[in-house]
Amino acid sequence: MQLPKHVVMKEVGPRDGLQNEKTHITTADKIQLVNLLSQTGLNYIEVTSFVHPKWIPQLADAVEVLQAIKRNKDITYAALVPNMRGLERALQAEVDEVSIFMSASESHNQSNINKTIDETFPILEEVVLGAKASKKKVRGYISTVLGCPYEGYIHPDKVLRVTDKLLLMGVTEISLGDTIGVGVPTQVEHLLEELLKRFSANNFAMHFHDTRGTALANIMKSLEMGVTKFDSALGGLGGCPYAKGASGNVATEDLLYLFDEMGIQTGVDRQKILEAALFIEQKLGKAVASKQMAIVRNERSANPL
Amino acid sequence: MQLPKHVVMKEVGPRDGLQNEKTHITTADKIQLVNLLSQTGLNYIEVTSFVHPKWIPQLADAVEVLQAIKRNKDITYAALVPNMRGLERALQAEVDEVSIFMSASESHNQSNINKTIDETFPILEEVVLGAKASKKKVRGYISTVLGCPYEGYIHPDKVLRVTDKLLLMGVTEISLGDTIGVGVPTQVEHLLEELLKRFSANNFAMHFHDTRGTALANIMKSLEMGVTKFDSALGGLGGCPYAKGASGNVATEDLLYLFDEMGIQTGVDRQKILEAALFIEQKLGKAVASKQMAIVRNERSANPL
Repeated sequence: MQLPKHVVMKEVGPRDGLQNEKTHITTADKIQLVNLLSQTGLNYIEVTSFVHPKWIPQLADAVEVLQAIKRNKDITYAALVPNMRGLERALQAEVDEVSIFMSASESHNQSNINKTIDETFPILEEVVLGAKASKKKVRGYISTVLGCPYEGYIHPDKVLRVTDKLLLMGVTEISLGDTIGVGVPTQVEHLLEELLKRFSANNFAMHFHDTRGTALANIMKSLEMGVTKFDSALGGLGGCPYAKGASGNVATEDLLYLFDEMGIQTGVDRQKILEAALFIEQKLGKAVASKQMAIVRNERSANPL
Repeated sequence: MQLPKHVVMKEVGPRDGLQNEKTHITTADKIQLVNLLSQTGLNYIEVTSFVHPKWIPQLADAVEVLQAIKRNKDITYAALVPNMRGLERALQAEVDEVSIFMSASESHNQSNINKTIDETFPILEEVVLGAKASKKKVRGYISTVLGCPYEGYIHPDKVLRVTDKLLLMGVTEISLGDTIGVGVPTQVEHLLEELLKRFSANNFAMHFHDTRGTALANIMKSLEMGVTKFDSALGGLGGCPYAKGASGNVATEDLLYLFDEMGIQTGVDRQKILEAALFIEQKLGKAVASKQMAIVRNERSANPL
C-alpha cells in the first residue's frame, strides 16, 4: 500500500462542529478554543461562519471571535461565507481564507441554500471574485458527494460538474463532503477515480462525517488514491441535522491516532489536541463522540486524582 | 480494489461481548439473545465460555444456555474452552465447535492464562485432540496480534510461531485478535503479508476491537488481502479490560452496513440484527456502542410512537 508521507489536517470543529451543537458556548469560550487549537501544530482552522444568524444563531458572534483570537502567522484562519454580505463581514473581521459551499445534490442544495444549483453558481462566483480582489484564497465545500438524505446515491458526474464550475471560478481547493456519513470505501474509490481523470489530487480535501463508523476506512482509501488533505473536528463535534445526536465529523484526535501510528507526518501534537477536546467537552457538558476521548475518560475514572 | 464477493460473519457477542459486561444478564435472556441471533442469517454464533466461573462469573450458566437454545442445523454453535475440564462440560452440553485461545504476547499470555506460551501449547493440544476425537472442529484465537497492553508492538514472527503450532495441532481456523484495538491498516497489511507467505487466507478470521475507531479500516485492508471471515459482536459489546468502558468488538451491525453497501454478500439480515441489538441493549440498560444503534435511537427520539 502506497501512502503519502505528509498530510494536512484542516480543523473544522469551531465551525462545522459548534454550528450543530445545541449547547450555548460563550464567545469567550470559542475564542479560548481557537487559541488552544492554535497551539497544537494545526495550520488551518475554520473559525466560524458568516451565514446569517437567523440560520445559525450558534455562530452569531463570528466577527467578535475572529477579531479576538490570538493569531499565529503560520496558521490560516478561515470562515464560511454564503454571499457578499457575509464576505463583507468576514473581510471586516480580517479572515485569512474564505470557504463557500453548495451541494452536489439538487434537492439538498435547495433545502440547504433555498436555490437551485444553477442559481447558486453566480452568487458564489461573486463571492470568489470579491475574495480574490481582497487577496483571499477561496475553498469550496461540496456537500452530499456520497449520498443525499433526499435523493440517496449521488452520481460522480454531479460532483464533477460542480467541481469543474468552482475551480473555473477560481476556488483553489475543493472539500468533498460525505455530509450524512453514508459512504463506504468502494464509493470513495469510484468517485476519486472519476475526479482524478480530470483534476489533480491536490485540488481536493476529503470531509467525512462518521455517522456510520466508516470515516477512517474512507480516509484510508482516499490516502491510497493520493489525497493528502483531510477535514476533521475536535471531539467528533457536529452531529448531523438528519440523524440527531449521531456522531458528526470524524474526530481530529481519532484521525491523528491513525496518521501517527502509520508514520504519516501531520505536525500536530495529540496531547495538545486532547487538551483542547477536554476543554470543549467541559463547556458542552457532555461526553464528546471520539474514541480517544473515551479512553481519556476511562483512564481518569480508573485513576482519579 | 479487489474485494471478495462473499464473506462469513462470526458472531461473538454472547461470549466475547457478555463476558466483559458488568450488568447481570439472566440465563433466559441469554437464551433469547442466541435464539434471536439464530434468525438473522448468521451461520456461526459463539454462544458462551467454559472458562471456570471463578474467572468469568458472567458466563457460569454455559451448560444451561447451550442446552436450552433452539438449534438451527445450518448454524454452528461454538463455545470457548480453556482445558480438558472445560471441554468435558462443553461436550456434555453438545457444543458444535470448540474455540481455544492463547496470546501472541508472552506477558499477555502469562497474565491471561497464568502460563508461558510454551506451557500453554500442550494443554491446548490435549483439548484439540479431545475435541477431534468427538468429531468437533477447533478454532484457535490468538490475542494481541497487533499490540499488547504490556509489551506494545508485537512482531509478526510471534504470531507466525503460534499460528504454526496451532495449525499443526489440528486447529482448522485461526482468529487473529487485535485484543486492545490498537492496530492500524499498515500493521494489518504487514502481519498478513508475513502470514500469507506460509499459510492460506482461508486459515484466518480477523477479530478486531474498535477501541480507537480503526476496526472498519483494518477490516477493509484484511478484505483486500483476501481474508473472508470476520468476528464481530452485536451492539459492539465487550469493552476491553485494559480500557474500561471503551468500546469492545467491532459491532456486527456496523460491519454489516459496510459489507451491504459494498455489495459483499453475507446472508445476514440487518433489520433482524438490529432487533437483537435492541433486545440486548434493553437488558443491559445502557446505550450500546454501535453507530447503527445510535441512528436507531435518534430516529426513535425524533419520531416517538
